[in-house]
Amino acid sequence: MSHAPFDLVVVGSVALDDLDGPFGPRPDLLGGSASYFSTAASYLAPRPVRLVAVVGEDFPEEHVAFLDERGVNLAGLERAPGKTFRWKGRYSDDLASRTTLDTQLGVFAGFTPRLPDAWRDSELVFLGNIEPGLQRAVVEQMHRPRLVACDTMNFWIEGKPESVRQTLAKVDLLVINDEEARLLSGEHNLVKAAAAVRRLGPHGVVVKRGDSGALLFHEAGIFAAPAFPLEDVVDPTGAGDSFAGGFMGYLARAGELSPSTLRCAMIYGSVMASFCVEALSLGRLGRLTLAEITARYRAFHELTHFENVSL
Amino acid sequence: MSHAPFDLVVVGSVALDDLDGPFGPRPDLLGGSASYFSTAASYLAPRPVRLVAVVGEDFPEEHVAFLDERGVNLAGLERAPGKTFRWKGRYSDDLASRTTLDTQLGVFAGFTPRLPDAWRDSELVFLGNIEPGLQRAVVEQMHRPRLVACDTMNFWIEGKPESVRQTLAKVDLLVINDEEARLLSGEHNLVKAAAAVRRLGPHGVVVKRGDSGALLFHEAGIFAAPAFPLEDVVDPTGAGDSFAGGFMGYLARAGELSPSTLRCAMIYGSVMASFCVEALSLGRLGRLTLAEITARYRAFHELTHFENVSL
Repeated sequence: MSHAPFDLVVVGSVALDDLDGPFGPRPDLLGGSASYFSTAASYLAPRPVRLVAVVGEDFPEEHVAFLDERGVNLAGLERAPGKTFRWKGRYSDDLASRTTLDTQLGVFAGFTPRLPDAWRDSELVFLGNIEPGLQRAVVEQMHRPRLVACDTMNFWIEGKPESVRQTLAKVDLLVINDEEARLLSGEHNLVKAAAAVRRLGPHGVVVKRGDSGALLFHEAGIFAAPAFPLEDVVDPTGAGDSFAGGFMGYLARAGELSPSTLRCAMIYGSVMASFCVEALSLGRLGRLTLAEITARYRAFHELTHFENVSL
Repeated sequence: MSHAPFDLVVVGSVALDDLDGPFGPRPDLLGGSASYFSTAASYLAPRPVRLVAVVGEDFPEEHVAFLDERGVNLAGLERAPGKTFRWKGRYSDDLASRTTLDTQLGVFAGFTPRLPDAWRDSELVFLGNIEPGLQRAVVEQMHRPRLVACDTMNFWIEGKPESVRQTLAKVDLLVINDEEARLLSGEHNLVKAAAAVRRLGPHGVVVKRGDSGALLFHEAGIFAAPAFPLEDVVDPTGAGDSFAGGFMGYLARAGELSPSTLRCAMIYGSVMASFCVEALSLGRLGRLTLAEITARYRAFHELTHFENVSL
């Protein structure tokens, strides 16, 4: 790698998940967008991923220890009086759909993200799926980031459309799923949807499509990453955030943002998402080796490579 | 190309389609699996594609002339007393779903496919979606084909499961869509579904996933072809048959069946499917140039290529 690595900040949720599904009831799992993101990114980013989030007094010390062991910089993890954000959801037997049974914001309700001063010069920032005004508050604390990437969800697109638009105007790359892209743009066709989103500000859009892979739309064209064909999917929770973590973690490692680097980042994102879903919570994603990651990246190449033959 | 080309036979339907959808009511269109297949294959196969089908007395001469101009060998196109197979369907506004309004088998009800003697030595045969017993009758008329590929559909899988299994035992490659693969195997997961299908006979399975692309499962591993991100999809009718035609047409051109050739064939199939949906019926697929086909193949490479970097 010939470029100096970038520093990477993530702001999002660190949560407790109560999951139910074909794997049976599993309460008190480590969850949240920033947990999945920072774990996935930690394998690729050469310097500790900088995490900004809040947890309550009930947050288990073992989860803090887990993120710390993954080398995540927790100087921005606030502990506030009250309870940790908790999400309760149930998956269908084929894991193709899920229902939110309960959401308890807890300490997240009064959260104001604050970046440690030393982090304001970070080149890369990922704004996980939190209230769009808070996402802007993070961007405003940064000096001159090279890439501001952002997630959002139907809840904000429908509930705070004007605030989402204000945030998008300050974002370089939006990372959302296909249904969110359609809702945000009012276009069913994903090519048209991505073009409409890019007119709102971001010069790049990543559309995540679950087991149909992910598409990157940007000025250099379109790149399609497949999903890895897995025989056993256990728990889809956090796959999208793991994708974003692998994507941004690779950019941090590369230290540059060329079109060919963005393509590799799309594949590292897909690699991390594929590991994420292979076990409950962070059971697989949290225990990877670099050799496993490299082998799966090569397997993605093998999965998609074909000769550029002429007729 | 260093190998002698293969000869390619297709058996299937040549039909009249009455379509309705966002494009308005459009009766009497040329349709049917063998029409789309042979048109798509005609650009790639160096020798005339050999078509086996039946039409009625009402079949317009202009449609025969169209296939003839595409260089399709129509010596196996039977004209029988009665009416041509007719399918009437309506698409939803977003083209994501369609409803069959009416099916009139017409002359197809009494059809027995007969191969001209000179065609029995063909190396490649595609059994379009017809009654599975008729598919076997075609295979039995061939001498020693190098590759027998086959399509089928829910109607036969549910209605004649034992006959479908007997046909699969004689087939090298099954080309079906994801829902058919799930129905045939009883497995929701596509990796498991493909493995189960391969235990029924075919050593290869192509799973078509519409705008999520297509997967090839065979002894050399898995290959994922994306769908081409199109801004304007007009009519999805025949996309799967156009895929099969591009796939088999390229194999006919290559004259060999190596894993790397099968990958290129997957992309040529995807190329032809992408052209097919850009206009009503065969409006685009029937009027292509080799330059357009080559350009789109290159666009597929550009869409999917990434460097095989190491960490």
